Amino acid sequence: MCKSHDHTIHGAHHHFGWDHSIPPVMTVAPGSTIEFECLDASGRQLTGDSTVADVAGLDFGRVNPVTGPVFLEGAEPGDAVKVTIHEFSPSGFGWTANIPGFGLLADQFTEPALHIWDYDAASLAPALYGPDGKVPLKPFAGTIGLAPAEPGLHSVVPPRRVGGNMDIRDLAAGSELYLPVEVAGGLFSIGDTHAAQGDGEVCGTAIESPMNVVLTLDLVKQANLKMPRFTTSGPVTRHLDEKGYEVTTGIGTDLFEGARAAVAQMVDLLAARHGMAAVDAYMLCSVCGDLRISEIVDQPNWIVSFYFPRIVLD
Amino acid sequence: MCKSHDHTIHGAHHHFGWDHSIPPVMTVAPGSTIEFECLDASGRQLTGDSTVADVAGLDFGRVNPVTGPVFLEGAEPGDAVKVTIHEFSPSGFGWTANIPGFGLLADQFTEPALHIWDYDAASLAPALYGPDGKVPLKPFAGTIGLAPAEPGLHSVVPPRRVGGNMDIRDLAAGSELYLPVEVAGGLFSIGDTHAAQGDGEVCGTAIESPMNVVLTLDLVKQANLKMPRFTTSGPVTRHLDEKGYEVTTGIGTDLFEGARAAVAQMVDLLAARHGMAAVDAYMLCSVCGDLRISEIVDQPNWIVSFYFPRIVLD
Repeated sequence: MCKSHDHTIHGAHHHFGWDHSIPPVMTVAPGSTIEFECLDASGRQLTGDSTVADVAGLDFGRVNPVTGPVFLEGAEPGDAVKVTIHEFSPSGFGWTANIPGFGLLADQFTEPALHIWDYDAASLAPALYGPDGKVPLKPFAGTIGLAPAEPGLHSVVPPRRVGGNMDIRDLAAGSELYLPVEVAGGLFSIGDTHAAQGDGEVCGTAIESPMNVVLTLDLVKQANLKMPRFTTSGPVTRHLDEKGYEVTTGIGTDLFEGARAAVAQMVDLLAARHGMAAVDAYMLCSVCGDLRISEIVDQPNWIVSFYFPRIVLD
Repeated sequence: MCKSHDHTIHGAHHHFGWDHSIPPVMTVAPGSTIEFECLDASGRQLTGDSTVADVAGLDFGRVNPVTGPVFLEGAEPGDAVKVTIHEFSPSGFGWTANIPGFGLLADQFTEPALHIWDYDAASLAPALYGPDGKVPLKPFAGTIGLAPAEPGLHSVVPPRRVGGNMDIRDLAAGSELYLPVEVAGGLFSIGDTHAAQGDGEVCGTAIESPMNVVLTLDLVKQANLKMPRFTTSGPVTRHLDEKGYEVTTGIGTDLFEGARAAVAQMVDLLAARHGMAAVDAYMLCSVCGDLRISEIVDQPNWIVSFYFPRIVLD
């Protein structure tokens, strides 16, 4: 059952990277509700039959396609596009990979790895991982943004002031996102849908999964936002927090190194306790564990903590 | 009603800073349950009658006293002290301050500020803040640690490998904390109790509140921990997440600057929307809002998000 919508943009209408000269697929009035067909982040290079050899052979010129762009009537620089995210129609297929050179512990995990997920798209029951793992699902769009003002083609990888590859796991159904407009019409696109991800996306990939998204685009004149902001309609972790967390800490003067230390210790803990390969623990951390900044004021040492939900391996 | 315990260490037995030459107050066997009387972080320099002038006059040589130290029999370097946190007996009095030179936005908030809290210690009902604010409470100990191996007196301010001023808001009742031992006996102390705090403790103070803590000290031989870790017995945010969150983002190449940008934007949002002074919004963010690392892999831009629970100002 799908929320009624005014328009559908099919997956064939995708682009790679951000460039405000890409012609819009469609022009819509504020208040329009649109369904977007989103490809997975590999752009269909990986399928349910893929093996780890396909990770090594990925064509990075074809990763992270986004569906769009949509021109929102009346949107001008200084305004904000308000995106009300209604629902996701997941596909049931997903993948998580360790891609060499990419990820928080890229120096420690130098070989490609791949996990193929086959989850129940109707029930969204926790997805199985090895003999013990059950990962609660919460679909969202990893990449959601507008075209930047600066001319030319910009890589899709980094997020920017206009959004993009933000990988914020709470941009799920019910959330309202505000994106700063830098060009006429905003030029909205979306993709990189995920069935689950923790805060940080530490191995560099989530449960990468094609799915359809229904959302409404509205216009807020002269919002003058510095960066994106959003509102969640309710709790954000109750689907996985019931049994609490295992938590590791990284203490030191640099938040990035603190995050690396916290995640590395959790990988070691899970691998030792559950007899899994370190790279499997690392990928599992990416799809369900959260990086939090516990304190950032007790000079000169900050603490980044990594929270792994105990329900996943209970 | 207090959990039964084997020993009580009164607040008079406190020390300032960490130094493994400070004689232990008590020697206990593993498995001992102990009640600690903890002073507030000002060491009683601030009271319910204090004004902002008292913040400016704080003697920093007397801040953050910790109660202890306790010598745990059999603890040796390489072991871990396991701390099972049973319960807190809060006092009902608390304070939150902006202390010049201290806090994530110290450059923007250069004047002292003080809020005195008067909360219901029996019910732990949300504490009132101005005309609209209601802050859910969850007591924990901000400073909990062992003596470092390195000789001499070490400032209490930064946390270290042996713990200390970690300000991790989930070291609450029900949590089990593991601390690496660096000296014989571990030399455990605790203090800096908080009635509430968000992840980050962004203004530098929480709801600073004297209270008693009951905990059990156990010994894990040859744990060989790199840094502290802990387990929570259940969910960690359900006391405040019911109505969801307002979220601001900081996008860029540096996590610290990203955190600053996210918090500054939330301060602006709350101040504008609720008509409060910016410094009051900043202190409110510190006691209930959370810094999370949304993504740390989409080179070269990371995202730090600041989550403010909507229930507080609903």
